[in-house]
Amino acid sequence: MKKASIVSIGNEILSGETIDTNAAYLSSQLFSSGIPVISSYTIGDCQDSIVRRLELAADDADIVLVTGGLGPTDDDLTRQAFAKFLNVELTLRNELLEKIQQFFTSRNRQMSPKNKIQAYLPANTKAITNNLGTAPGIMFVLRSSTTTENGAEIKDKLFFALPGVPSEMKEMFERTVLPKLKTFTTEQTVIALKLKCFGAGESTIAEKLGDLMQRNRNPLINCTANYGVVTLHIIAKAKDKKTAKEMVEKDKKSLTKLLGKLIYGSGEQTLAQVVGEKLAQKKMTIAVAESCTGGLLAKLITDIPGASRYFTHGWVTYSNAAKVKELGVPADLIEKNGAVSSEVAQAMAEGARKKADADIAIGITGIAGPSTDNSQKPVGLVYIALASNDICQVERFTFSHDRNFIRPITCQTALNMIRLKL
Amino acid sequence: MKKASIVSIGNEILSGETIDTNAAYLSSQLFSSGIPVISSYTIGDCQDSIVRRLELAADDADIVLVTGGLGPTDDDLTRQAFAKFLNVELTLRNELLEKIQQFFTSRNRQMSPKNKIQAYLPANTKAITNNLGTAPGIMFVLRSSTTTENGAEIKDKLFFALPGVPSEMKEMFERTVLPKLKTFTTEQTVIALKLKCFGAGESTIAEKLGDLMQRNRNPLINCTANYGVVTLHIIAKAKDKKTAKEMVEKDKKSLTKLLGKLIYGSGEQTLAQVVGEKLAQKKMTIAVAESCTGGLLAKLITDIPGASRYFTHGWVTYSNAAKVKELGVPADLIEKNGAVSSEVAQAMAEGARKKADADIAIGITGIAGPSTDNSQKPVGLVYIALASNDICQVERFTFSHDRNFIRPITCQTALNMIRLKL
Repeated sequence: MKKASIVSIGNEILSGETIDTNAAYLSSQLFSSGIPVISSYTIGDCQDSIVRRLELAADDADIVLVTGGLGPTDDDLTRQAFAKFLNVELTLRNELLEKIQQFFTSRNRQMSPKNKIQAYLPANTKAITNNLGTAPGIMFVLRSSTTTENGAEIKDKLFFALPGVPSEMKEMFERTVLPKLKTFTTEQTVIALKLKCFGAGESTIAEKLGDLMQRNRNPLINCTANYGVVTLHIIAKAKDKKTAKEMVEKDKKSLTKLLGKLIYGSGEQTLAQVVGEKLAQKKMTIAVAESCTGGLLAKLITDIPGASRYFTHGWVTYSNAAKVKELGVPADLIEKNGAVSSEVAQAMAEGARKKADADIAIGITGIAGPSTDNSQKPVGLVYIALASNDICQVERFTFSHDRNFIRPITCQTALNMIRLKL
Repeated sequence: MKKASIVSIGNEILSGETIDTNAAYLSSQLFSSGIPVISSYTIGDCQDSIVRRLELAADDADIVLVTGGLGPTDDDLTRQAFAKFLNVELTLRNELLEKIQQFFTSRNRQMSPKNKIQAYLPANTKAITNNLGTAPGIMFVLRSSTTTENGAEIKDKLFFALPGVPSEMKEMFERTVLPKLKTFTTEQTVIALKLKCFGAGESTIAEKLGDLMQRNRNPLINCTANYGVVTLHIIAKAKDKKTAKEMVEKDKKSLTKLLGKLIYGSGEQTLAQVVGEKLAQKKMTIAVAESCTGGLLAKLITDIPGASRYFTHGWVTYSNAAKVKELGVPADLIEKNGAVSSEVAQAMAEGARKKADADIAIGITGIAGPSTDNSQKPVGLVYIALASNDICQVERFTFSHDRNFIRPITCQTALNMIRLKL
């Protein structure tokens, strides 16, 4: 089986300024393509150190993926390090220079002279088009020979350099690198499937699955959690695609039976996507009225391209006056019960539904912290109301952790309430 | 100057399931303590690979920090790898075993026989107490000699193994490792300062700084960029704190002179924080009316604890009808100019300002993509209006990249407009 190694380049990673999400993204993508990452290296903007990491990575792996260091400034040294590693010169590629110039002219901007360096690539390497930025990627195949008992074995090693900007890196990886890797690794098939769950914790789900989660099982079932979303990875290895696929499908059925409505989707689906698809299918509309989540729920809903089909109105009524004036929440209701109350959440949802003339509306009020001015109402107390044509349901939650956790978990919980309603 | 290297251990990192936030945390802590991290390694749960990484890390660095692999299960191999690296046996430490047993009894739980391994440490190493979990850390000093022109130089190298669970790791690091490191690295002081800029790209800023960014300069000036925010790191090394501080201050002055209003803050400050502080200071209020950003601007403003002092109202008017009904944008204005136009942005900002009775209001309308239905109006075209008591300024932007970049960069740009206005 082919193995990969990742080299992340940038002082900003070593200084802790940037969390290396690129390595995690690539690892996950490679893992589900059946190419295990067996090591990764992080190094600063220093040419010799980069060259040394390329050597170390190539010792371990058949595929070396480098991210970062392709920018236009003097501390971007991946191009130079690749040239030194290959012992070749950097050469100007006119077609790349034209593309970079076009990038700027199409945006009515002047190209900085610094950007010219991005059109230089090591001789005998291939450029990877960057559709989102100015830095082209680099690709080459290194023929390497390993001496074994039966003589020298020739092995190709694939090298890729991708930009450090996550959006550019991902676009390039999915469009060009991944298809290339799939033709390069053929001897074993790995099929992976992710099931996405919401409504129970990791340990509860693990208990429900029991023996299915044994470490030496094939398919292997892994479990990860993020802001209440639990992802189950089913990873089947087999000699051929058909067998692996059947194994995955069989496990998918077992898990669906065990977990029921806890499973909301598969692959990379988010709750906002699933809810959006259902709303679009049913030609229903939704409006949201937020207090403590401050626009985050609207943001999550409109993260999805095409959300305008079902999302029309959102209110962030942070003050009591805004709740009264914009949503028609009765002032005495707030006075009597407090802004963080079941009654106010309900009035917000109903007001939003009426004003937006929507099929469904959400009202959220709660205490995101860091502090609370009411000892009866702790940080993390949240009311979520869902108003629809028949009924308004209100649920009370007490979430743990801090503001940065309470706000997203509240929004995910609201999306899950909509999902179950639909 | 002492340098550090980080080794992160765990299959879950290499498979992309877990993002390695431990390495980022340690890097950042060490960086601001004047101990640069010069490399980091990630490796799976394999004893020989771990040993090899310890060797590589010790080649580069004076301090080696290992996280992960101290759990009780069979794939936790850091203890064994440390023993092999030191060529010693693992020995049972009775005092550790007692502590682990106590950990379980105090929680009314039965200790699993598997946990006993956590009381074994390589001979001649020191345990680091774990106040939050069962895995003790490990520490030892390795005397290593380097042959130089003037003969052999004896150098101590410090090794630490910390648990992979972030809360346990951080508690242990701050309580025991950091104080130890501060006594270990005394010969040089490093003072670092971050200046945060917005309004020009990395390359433009680098051009303005010219020679100041030379790689061998002291202070060293590094530059990183994230969603339009350019961070300049000034890192001064000197024999004493006073000198280093003066060097940083001198550079700060030069940069401030060169960059002027491009600098919006320092340290970890965000644009939303700086804007919020200014609004609170001036006792002014703000309202936002968003279309393409769908609530993200309100979310960024309300990320800041205490935002209720200045933020009261937000609207997400995603549909034209919502713009007309909620903000009073004239319907014929939308018909004549289109929803994505300077006129509509202005009407949104003015409508929001009036309805919220706020001092300042923002109106945003644009095309976040992935597609546009008007060939005259490309993806990335955004109008941002800022209404205040004297004037309504509208700016037109064409942002590159995709929806996931256009939306945040739009919000940051709007926050920057508010900052400059204030």
